[in-house]
Amino acid sequence: MEKASRGNFFEDFRLGQDIVHAVPRTITSGDVSLYSALYGMRFAMQSSDAFAIACGLRTAPIDNLLLFHVIFGKSVPEISLNAVANLGYAECRFLEPAFPGDSFTARSEVIGLRENSTGKTGIVYVRTTGHNQHGAAVLSFVRWVMVNKRAPGAVVPETHVPTTAAAVSAQDLRIPEGLDFSGYDCTLAGSRNLFDAYRPGEKINHIDGMTIEAAEHQLATRLYQNTAKAHFDAVLQQSSRFGQRIVYGGHIISLARSLSYNGLENGCFVAAINGGRHVNPAAAGDTVYCWSEVLDTQMFESRKDVGAVRLRTIATKDISCADYPAPGGADETAILLDLDYWLLMPRLSL
Amino acid sequence: MEKASRGNFFEDFRLGQDIVHAVPRTITSGDVSLYSALYGMRFAMQSSDAFAIACGLRTAPIDNLLLFHVIFGKSVPEISLNAVANLGYAECRFLEPAFPGDSFTARSEVIGLRENSTGKTGIVYVRTTGHNQHGAAVLSFVRWVMVNKRAPGAVVPETHVPTTAAAVSAQDLRIPEGLDFSGYDCTLAGSRNLFDAYRPGEKINHIDGMTIEAAEHQLATRLYQNTAKAHFDAVLQQSSRFGQRIVYGGHIISLARSLSYNGLENGCFVAAINGGRHVNPAAAGDTVYCWSEVLDTQMFESRKDVGAVRLRTIATKDISCADYPAPGGADETAILLDLDYWLLMPRLSL
Amino acid sequence: MEKASRGNFFEDFRLGQDIVHAVPRTITSGDVSLYSALYGMRFAMQSSDAFAIACGLRTAPIDNLLLFHVIFGKSVPEISLNAVANLGYAECRFLEPAFPGDSFTARSEVIGLRENSTGKTGIVYVRTTGHNQHGAAVLSFVRWVMVNKRAPGAVVPETHVPTTAAAVSAQDLRIPEGLDFSGYDCTLAGSRNLFDAYRPGEKINHIDGMTIEAAEHQLATRLYQNTAKAHFDAVLQQSSRFGQRIVYGGHIISLARSLSYNGLENGCFVAAINGGRHVNPAAAGDTVYCWSEVLDTQMFESRKDVGAVRLRTIATKDISCADYPAPGGADETAILLDLDYWLLMPRLSL
Repeated sequence: MEKASRGNFFEDFRLGQDIVHAVPRTITSGDVSLYSALYGMRFAMQSSDAFAIACGLRTAPIDNLLLFHVIFGKSVPEISLNAVANLGYAECRFLEPAFPGDSFTARSEVIGLRENSTGKTGIVYVRTTGHNQHGAAVLSFVRWVMVNKRAPGAVVPETHVPTTAAAVSAQDLRIPEGLDFSGYDCTLAGSRNLFDAYRPGEKINHIDGMTIEAAEHQLATRLYQNTAKAHFDAVLQQSSRFGQRIVYGGHIISLARSLSYNGLENGCFVAAINGGRHVNPAAAGDTVYCWSEVLDTQMFESRKDVGAVRLRTIATKDISCADYPAPGGADETAILLDLDYWLLMPRLSL
Repeated sequence: MEKASRGNFFEDFRLGQDIVHAVPRTITSGDVSLYSALYGMRFAMQSSDAFAIACGLRTAPIDNLLLFHVIFGKSVPEISLNAVANLGYAECRFLEPAFPGDSFTARSEVIGLRENSTGKTGIVYVRTTGHNQHGAAVLSFVRWVMVNKRAPGAVVPETHVPTTAAAVSAQDLRIPEGLDFSGYDCTLAGSRNLFDAYRPGEKINHIDGMTIEAAEHQLATRLYQNTAKAHFDAVLQQSSRFGQRIVYGGHIISLARSLSYNGLENGCFVAAINGGRHVNPAAAGDTVYCWSEVLDTQMFESRKDVGAVRLRTIATKDISCADYPAPGGADETAILLDLDYWLLMPRLSL
Repeated sequence: MEKASRGNFFEDFRLGQDIVHAVPRTITSGDVSLYSALYGMRFAMQSSDAFAIACGLRTAPIDNLLLFHVIFGKSVPEISLNAVANLGYAECRFLEPAFPGDSFTARSEVIGLRENSTGKTGIVYVRTTGHNQHGAAVLSFVRWVMVNKRAPGAVVPETHVPTTAAAVSAQDLRIPEGLDFSGYDCTLAGSRNLFDAYRPGEKINHIDGMTIEAAEHQLATRLYQNTAKAHFDAVLQQSSRFGQRIVYGGHIISLARSLSYNGLENGCFVAAINGGRHVNPAAAGDTVYCWSEVLDTQMFESRKDVGAVRLRTIATKDISCADYPAPGGADETAILLDLDYWLLMPRLSL
């Protein structure tokens, strides 16, 4: 029996299958520093222990997207090593704040399977959950990927397509325990635009661009222990449909999140990801820009000091976002990411 | 109102203006590791907790230049986002040692303004100060930058050019509290050349060279949360006068500091920067070399175990420093940096 | 006297010479994060504090190869700065586990010297030992390097070629104190293939490949404070026999170790390196693959829960390892590394 794994193929999955993923991971302040160097994150809550402590937390929390990438990475060897494409995300909720020194594990449940008409691939739907060392769920999300079949004629399980929410309900967003915005300092955070300054329909060009280097996306993707070959193996990729290594989609999400600080300075927590699509692959040399549209704003019954802003952030390559390019338009081929998510923001009462 | 900031232009500044910069920052041991990987620093005091503890400190201090870059980075969005050039530094003093886990903030006072004769730009002089979480000032420096005007015809403030000291007086240098060189180990530090071995006029070729990669300077500059577009946006830079991304000047300072270990092994603290000039911009692919000249040596009344050595370090690109090339000479176009600073060194009585 | 060092030449060494190396070094969790980002290590023991604690350790230990690179790096300025080639390793034993926060120093004893027949170079054999802040030896290894003579006619010491063991005896391997595999979780570690699943003669293709970027190997090599010019100075290397910067050999060892996780998931500690050869140099752009052969398996009298597996791991560039290419074969020029080492693994009784 071959000891090295080639990953699962479509016919290897079973509906309801519960997969405990390998490689538990402690996220340390070293990982946070690398994350900072890779993206240049500037949200004050994750940048400064003193700032986070002033807001009731015990120290600066780990960026939720770093946590997402680590949990996602654990699921790759069993879920998407033989994936043709990452098709989508849904119902991603951040459930507990994570702090440097916490240790995480991940597991996935297969919640849907559907063979494609070609008979060569199928779509696998999983719900992946991350847990910390206390056994608490810190993160849960659904994703679906198109996975190759090992053998075109293989018998496949019955089709089941799960239903997922179009968006996480604002009332289901978790506000980190202990968070208290009475000590929030807008000047240090970088803007006086708090929750109440954002209106549905508003568009924000985040202006700045960042060029991706191969070493950067490789360092990032290894930091997340994500083993997808497409990101690392230039020889193998020469014969792929892309002809070169492509960038882990989550790298684009974090780049866009970092660039979006300029205009969303007080959007201190990504509380949920409602959906996301990697419209085109990115490669080293691409320069990423992004813009955001406010889709919705919601207040909470229980908390007058915090609101939720739902955003659509679109990232492009090599074209500015001054004209708000979107999928379906003339610039379709330049669109990298179309992401729908909820941010928590302090409210103006401050 | 546009939410994303495009930074201040010359006519936005006022003499005496006090700007509290955004994005407080905790510097952790993770940041120190990245700094180490980016430059290969080998000064024992910052490299080993055990070594620093033997010298009376509570743990290895953060390299003063890392602290400088972080405080500098905070000032970029409001001071130099629209800068044409970083013209100079003066009166940079390191006031308190910084340790991993400390959280920093920065503020700048506008101390001078002068419109250029073209009417298109002006020079902004600021004094920037970094504070730690206890409110203590850890670093203060003056810098002046040439900043674009938003509108050529805009009314500008009255001219005021501040006077700055040609050099920090040795008696104003701060010796880190608790520092005690009686436990200093020259062998571990890498040389028996202590303070008394250096004489004014002496020149040291630091021999080694280091080639800059784009991923490296981008990682560094993001680590410092420095947002200047010239370092990150290859598309935008194609139409700049440089035609490509250029390297953050502080990256060259740290590279030169690291290379200068070979010959200045016991120069364990940069105590002050008297002045500095980025003679030419650097780009990925350049190989950096450097040499130093001893400008002055000073002893302290109160401390017989420590002396201060004033150095001029010149960094070049792609040419060796065996012949001590300097600005104004035949190799002018190969000079990157001309830096004047004070180092603290243990004395021979050891 | 020139203050900057140009390193030792062959005629500078004396048999029995004891060299205390400079630059003591604390390895922090930040260094561990960088190591993770550079190689994508996935061995659970070093990845998760919670996993390591469940196995009786006080926290996740530092990867033994990271420790090796740091101790090796300290020896470079005095042993191999003028080396033409790293010829071999022997008797490398890891003696005590190392944890983030430990501070290390290194010293080397010259145990052999032999001038080459050309009269231009000689071989220097050293035994290098690393110590932690408590004075305990953590690592010891022999290496031999071909070093240039300063002057071809220089008088050289008498020839002495030391004898080194072909392999470390399994009974001399150190099992980390406190290690207890009763809490070992195979699922989290990534495989049910424990010690008893491996048989001498078995070959494992580790499948995956990883392309090296210049920024990556430079960051790694600087992290180890290794100053060998061949890795950093592109201008100097243009006139070398390689024509370009070459990758620190230890970088290939760690890449191979990381790739070998796929098939050796439970090989949680590198306990010894019996020998190693860098068959060909690697450069940025090379894609590394590797395969392993089980050379031996050994059990311990005192410990029924742990066994030792001796492996030969061969790394290649730009060719897959499906056909198990080896030195001496048709693919000789594509072989980067031939490494012989002992892994500790939990036993099936679990």
